[in-house]
Amino acid sequence: MGDDRLVRMAELEIVPARLEAYLALLTEEIAASVEREPGVLMLHAVADKAEPHKIRILEVYASRAAYEAHIQTPHFLKYKTGTTDMVAGLRLIDMNPIILAAR
Amino acid sequence: MGDDRLVRMAELEIVPARLEAYLALLTEEIAASVEREPGVLMLHAVADKAEPHKIRILEVYASRAAYEAHIQTPHFLKYKTGTTDMVAGLRLIDMNPIILAAR
Repeated sequence: MGDDRLVRMAELEIVPARLEAYLALLTEEIAASVEREPGVLMLHAVADKAEPHKIRILEVYASRAAYEAHIQTPHFLKYKTGTTDMVAGLRLIDMNPIILAAR
Repeated sequence: MGDDRLVRMAELEIVPARLEAYLALLTEEIAASVEREPGVLMLHAVADKAEPHKIRILEVYASRAAYEAHIQTPHFLKYKTGTTDMVAGLRLIDMNPIILAAR
């Protein structure tokens, strides 16, 4: 079975004083992406309980083309430009899915 | 709105020579858990593309009670005992959900 999905783990460190503003922009961007883009299959954002400014996002796109389209959307560009000075660190890790199971 | 969900990120490092056997046990365990346990909401396992023996699992349970029940199931115990000598490292990180969005 072919699997064109693009899977990534983003690890972000947010400037603590900007965390509330960052979370508002991130939440808005994720909701818009999954609602409007058929190629955005999954965006799961979680925060470290002990260090809430450390955030991880599991990202799954239907294909590389879907991802490339995603980063050109107005909602993504609003997030990206709006959060530039809030993000102190960003690591993007390319992943292969093993099993993605949800009910 | 109350949120009883228990969310965790597991970071595992597998003994490279045992990776294939480990993945078979993990996949079986995850499929059984999500199929049979209403309280297991999400188990998404991914492997680092550059270092495939480094695995992460985003785990979401309906509640702490659902998690406690999960780790007593035969399918979980089979996985846990069967993989003991395959796991070189395990880090469990308690997380708070920010937004979990999928289509």
